[in-house]
Amino acid sequence: MTITSLVTGGAGFIGSHVAAELVRAGHRVVVLDDLSGGDAANVPDGAHFVAGSVCDAGLVDSLFAQWRFTYVFHLAAYAAEGLSHFIKRYNYTNNVIGSVNLINASVNTGTVRCFVFTSSIAVYGDAEPPMSEDLTPLPIDSYGIAKYAVEQELKVSHEIFGLPYIVFRPHNVYGERQNIGDRYRNVIGIFMNQILRGESCTIFGDGEQTRAFSYIDDVALPIARSVDNPRAYGQTFNIGGDTPYTVNELATTVAAAMDAPLRVEHLPARHEVVHAYSSHEKARDVLGVGTGSVPLAEGIARMAAWARKQGPQEPSVFDGIEVDKNMPPSWRAVSRIR
Amino acid sequence: MTITSLVTGGAGFIGSHVAAELVRAGHRVVVLDDLSGGDAANVPDGAHFVAGSVCDAGLVDSLFAQWRFTYVFHLAAYAAEGLSHFIKRYNYTNNVIGSVNLINASVNTGTVRCFVFTSSIAVYGDAEPPMSEDLTPLPIDSYGIAKYAVEQELKVSHEIFGLPYIVFRPHNVYGERQNIGDRYRNVIGIFMNQILRGESCTIFGDGEQTRAFSYIDDVALPIARSVDNPRAYGQTFNIGGDTPYTVNELATTVAAAMDAPLRVEHLPARHEVVHAYSSHEKARDVLGVGTGSVPLAEGIARMAAWARKQGPQEPSVFDGIEVDKNMPPSWRAVSRIR
Repeated sequence: MTITSLVTGGAGFIGSHVAAELVRAGHRVVVLDDLSGGDAANVPDGAHFVAGSVCDAGLVDSLFAQWRFTYVFHLAAYAAEGLSHFIKRYNYTNNVIGSVNLINASVNTGTVRCFVFTSSIAVYGDAEPPMSEDLTPLPIDSYGIAKYAVEQELKVSHEIFGLPYIVFRPHNVYGERQNIGDRYRNVIGIFMNQILRGESCTIFGDGEQTRAFSYIDDVALPIARSVDNPRAYGQTFNIGGDTPYTVNELATTVAAAMDAPLRVEHLPARHEVVHAYSSHEKARDVLGVGTGSVPLAEGIARMAAWARKQGPQEPSVFDGIEVDKNMPPSWRAVSRIR
Repeated sequence: MTITSLVTGGAGFIGSHVAAELVRAGHRVVVLDDLSGGDAANVPDGAHFVAGSVCDAGLVDSLFAQWRFTYVFHLAAYAAEGLSHFIKRYNYTNNVIGSVNLINASVNTGTVRCFVFTSSIAVYGDAEPPMSEDLTPLPIDSYGIAKYAVEQELKVSHEIFGLPYIVFRPHNVYGERQNIGDRYRNVIGIFMNQILRGESCTIFGDGEQTRAFSYIDDVALPIARSVDNPRAYGQTFNIGGDTPYTVNELATTVAAAMDAPLRVEHLPARHEVVHAYSSHEKARDVLGVGTGSVPLAEGIARMAAWARKQGPQEPSVFDGIEVDKNMPPSWRAVSRIR
């Protein structure tokens, strides 16, 4: 039997790597992506690309009717914790309404054997790290609230409709094909682009906040393979790198990988979680894959080689700011309220 | 200084009572209601009525710019826990996107001194009753998930933007001006309409599920008055009746109040919380109002007198069902998927 998988956000960073792995595994792959953050060039050869949004319920319903998907890998999202306060309507429309369109279609079609959802470490808010899956989430930003709502929705949809699901909570993912032109998110990409443009690396606050960074293969491959593992069904997994680094250490590592002198500009601190890293024991135990297996220096060297080939990017400006009160000044300077 | 209050859902049941109390208190009152569940006749004399939806961000923004509200009482919602599984997109659009439009406008206008949000006991899911406010919510239906997301959003918006708020979690409210023609929600209204139509009262399951029913004055008056109480700010309150009754007991009480013989038809049980009632100690302590002060028999007698004047209503059919799988058969029989 042909296995047909939908990958939403499959022209984006994590999604394109998941899609590529599914093509390698022999799935028939359909990518749905609105190209708001992704690039059609990221869609792997062999996948069928549909340009459109998960928010378009009519399009979603027609794709499910046409392809009768076996698996849904839902990775489409605008994953910007810090910016989400200022784009609440966009955040909830994209992340909640879009997800619900896919859940409705999965239930109505009746062919979906697993709905794989990429949530985020943001659901934990400022819980004491390392965050483990048995904590009850208490997010502190609009992005985390939206992701947590979809997690709850999947649990309820399993109870009411029997829709099988797996939830992943990756964190601070980096690697080839990340959009380094996004000024609002993904600090490694931002640093690389700043270095390529001859600018200082900008750090919010003193830079002593810690994050555990995750090389793309350590996230995308376990996500793609999870559907073959019966023990993963109905479960939620932290996934990604184990070792926390300060943002200052990160800047040093990125500058070295880019063969550039380290120049840092500290900006006023913003509202963000100070220490965020999670435990991956459950992923190791149940998924049976080594997580966090690529060391930071090696992963960053791979990404740096790729970024240098890309060259410097003009940092994008988010065009739909809804509220600009209390925005970090460096963002506010380039944004206008719509 | 003139105090100007917005009451969303002010043509609906609880909202019209809140609006009436605010008019009595001397506020200039603007009611925004899309009349999906309400009736323009419910808008109290002296209030300015605008027909429209909280989901219309342009309309919301223009109302805030025009009136520069002092207080926002956000009661617009389609409050149907049981139906929410089958109308997920409608549920989240109405309850989350609509709320976010109001939060954005409150922050942008900068005049709002308190955002009063009517959440629901549904956020507690199937927690052990009596539910108290210090429990971390774990909703089990799409309606409860949406309400909880907005509660979290208000907490975060207070942290980021300084927007003051008060959250109420009422439960099983009944009384005059309730829409008894809605077949999907509000069991007391459903029973009264069934009796007026000469039909049996329909009960899901054995009827031994318990609820504490809340007479409208015991909910609407504390909500309207909360903004004058500094101790209420930033707080969340259960509000409503204290005494749990089985649905079977309720049917007996309603039939007696309607001077009708008791005729009951038991339908297959549906997915719902079995026992739901909450503690109101915090509301008594902080709000200083007697909650649950109107006994069930008296409240039902008042509502029955009103309902008899209304006469029997043709039960409405919800026109936007998104998923009909596993719907209670009595609902499915009258619904069609859109």
